[in-house]
Amino acid sequence: RINKQRLWDSLMEMGEIGGTEKGGCCRLALTDLDKQGRDLFVKWCEEAGCSITVDKMGNIFARRPGKDNSLAPVAVGSHLDTQPTGGKFDGVYGVLAGLEIFRTLNEQGIETTTPLETVAWTNEEGSRFPPAMVSSGVFAGAFDLEYGLSRADLDGKTMGEELQRIGYAGEAEVGNHPFKAFFEAHIEQGPILEDEHKQIGVVTDAQGQRWYEITLTGQESHAGPTPMPSRRDALVGAARIVDMVNRIGMDNQPNACATVGLMQVFPNSRNVIPGQVFFTVDFRHPDAEVLEKMDQALREEAARIVEELKLEMAFEQIWYSPPVPFAQQCVASVRKAAEELELSHREMVSGAGHDACYIARVAPTSMVFVPCEKGISHNELERADADDLAAGCNVLLKAVLEHANA
Amino acid sequence: RINKQRLWDSLMEMGEIGGTEKGGCCRLALTDLDKQGRDLFVKWCEEAGCSITVDKMGNIFARRPGKDNSLAPVAVGSHLDTQPTGGKFDGVYGVLAGLEIFRTLNEQGIETTTPLETVAWTNEEGSRFPPAMVSSGVFAGAFDLEYGLSRADLDGKTMGEELQRIGYAGEAEVGNHPFKAFFEAHIEQGPILEDEHKQIGVVTDAQGQRWYEITLTGQESHAGPTPMPSRRDALVGAARIVDMVNRIGMDNQPNACATVGLMQVFPNSRNVIPGQVFFTVDFRHPDAEVLEKMDQALREEAARIVEELKLEMAFEQIWYSPPVPFAQQCVASVRKAAEELELSHREMVSGAGHDACYIARVAPTSMVFVPCEKGISHNELERADADDLAAGCNVLLKAVLEHANA
Ligand SMILES: NC(=O)NCCC(=O)O
Ligand SMILES: NC(=O)NCCC(=O)O
Repeated sequence: RINKQRLWDSLMEMGEIGGTEKGGCCRLALTDLDKQGRDLFVKWCEEAGCSITVDKMGNIFARRPGKDNSLAPVAVGSHLDTQPTGGKFDGVYGVLAGLEIFRTLNEQGIETTTPLETVAWTNEEGSRFPPAMVSSGVFAGAFDLEYGLSRADLDGKTMGEELQRIGYAGEAEVGNHPFKAFFEAHIEQGPILEDEHKQIGVVTDAQGQRWYEITLTGQESHAGPTPMPSRRDALVGAARIVDMVNRIGMDNQPNACATVGLMQVFPNSRNVIPGQVFFTVDFRHPDAEVLEKMDQALREEAARIVEELKLEMAFEQIWYSPPVPFAQQCVASVRKAAEELELSHREMVSGAGHDACYIARVAPTSMVFVPCEKGISHNELERADADDLAAGCNVLLKAVLEHANA
Repeated sequence: RINKQRLWDSLMEMGEIGGTEKGGCCRLALTDLDKQGRDLFVKWCEEAGCSITVDKMGNIFARRPGKDNSLAPVAVGSHLDTQPTGGKFDGVYGVLAGLEIFRTLNEQGIETTTPLETVAWTNEEGSRFPPAMVSSGVFAGAFDLEYGLSRADLDGKTMGEELQRIGYAGEAEVGNHPFKAFFEAHIEQGPILEDEHKQIGVVTDAQGQRWYEITLTGQESHAGPTPMPSRRDALVGAARIVDMVNRIGMDNQPNACATVGLMQVFPNSRNVIPGQVFFTVDFRHPDAEVLEKMDQALREEAARIVEELKLEMAFEQIWYSPPVPFAQQCVASVRKAAEELELSHREMVSGAGHDACYIARVAPTSMVFVPCEKGISHNELERADADDLAAGCNVLLKAVLEHANA
């Protein structure tokens, strides 16, 4: 059994780096704070006897040797970056759960057959540098390295530059690094486990997602003397698309999600008709066909709206992450661990994307979910219970040992 | 007759301060660039033999003595600040037309009975510090000094602090400074004069306006695992209000204008349901009753929308500038000047607010409009014709002389 208090204390200590007044965390990928978080993780892993490798995408691999170090490691991990108004658990839990497993095994003097690794993947959130999960994506061959390093934030800074700046542009090639199996522990980020009073989510699948960037261009002009009928107001167009995106989500219930999370208005002055609006769309569904139907609806209706308002539109799907079925043998190990530990559990589909979704392409993979309060995540109020976090970590430990010693 | 080329050259020289690549100007109120613009204006006025007074709101009064300096001056003027993506003419023309009149009178050795003044009013645009026309408003007693100095930008910097910083927090009390008459020359900022091939707008009235600030609060949460039916998406609410504001404008045609020009989304991350949106509304109409009806519709429909979406709303009307009828004797002087100069002209209502709207409360006031290309203003592409600008300046000169020598 892992040490519940030690896991909790490490989560709280990591959460102080970028900690916010409301009790959340703001540690955007590749900022100075992200560097501080990485440094702390590396220090802890070295203290636990691990060797550290950093690859060219800044992914950190902390390795605990096994009896036969020629075998591929069993790996766990998640991410240390957060949303701008993020919590202390999203991602960080999966990384520190891996560290807690190492500490527990050390304490008990347990040696596994294969080596073990805990991985901290770079920029999972995709908030500063879209898309999400980009570095596990490069690792799994979903993107090439050049694409990964050239992802840019809204100020034009690239991941490559920022990795150099914070000293985490590693030497190791990205990928070509086989895992015997990969497990990711994570808070659910949704309400199902809490609603059903279950402690463990046995994650069988992850839903697919499509991300879009849309720029509408009209003509900025004076809000006073410019007659309504001759306006080309880009914000009116964006507003209609936001409402329509929301309706597409509602029309495809249950399960569809549709969100406009980011919008920038130019020139953003009270008495100027907006000449340009940039915004994003995030569509999700477990079924690729429904996602395709949502895509079609978005394209058709957006085209109709911009025509009606005489706007120009630049429309780009910048990311497609297809629905992911996790490996049956790994799902089975998670279920079995929950059963043996007599923890209440249910199968579930992940609503969020996770690094595990890409790693599933190159290694047998699955995930362990634990409840998060009221299903609230990507919010400073995100909270998880120390008992639940410990339960998930014990499930992770059991699943890892099963594969590492098989 | 004024010197067309000299007027044009001064406009272009002033336009270089904050000049943009697209040929526009970005010289927001009380920035370093605004200071540079003010310094140049003051230098030019001193070279033209004027004495300078700056009041506590940073309004600059350049005075050309008359035969009887105990008489109240006849004044002209406008503003030197611009929109973030503004042009070279909005406001600046009215200030430099005053300077050009002084230069012309000097050249011809003409002395007027009353003194003359050219005024540069602080922060007319209201873009950095809402509301618009705030310093002419304090001058005219529409606001008190404390209100004026405490206006803050989105970073929380106040006009008082910024006036100190750039060295334009003058000593003179604001107001208690009688004008015999006040005239403001301005580009029309709308399409009417150009469409009707008229060179001069004889401005009889200005429409009223109401400005609002609205903050919607929902709950930020993860765009993936948060089911649509349980969301409280502040941007969906804002989008519906933007569309509804636009409809209120359309429903009150002809003449109504309704604009959402500024919007800020929090936390503004692609995969986070927006928890808070701040935006502004700008309503205009020449008839105060219609404006009242629009206000009512906005309040009712916004309340319905936020209830439906389970959002909270902070709603504030931050500014009301009632419709302004200009003084008949001043309007008549402008019309007479246009007639004597054989310039094509028509009467019109100003769609924009102007410093003249507040000065009309304390002095006989009117305005002279000249065409602007395609009616486009508050845009870097704003353009006016040198002949039209000269024509408007000649009308201004004649109207001023009529009152200064009467
Ligand atoms: N787990 C998580 O929050 N991932 C971010 C990527 C996504 O938006 O699904
Ligand atoms: N003339 C002008 O652009 N004034 C700014 C205030 C307004 O929005 O009407």
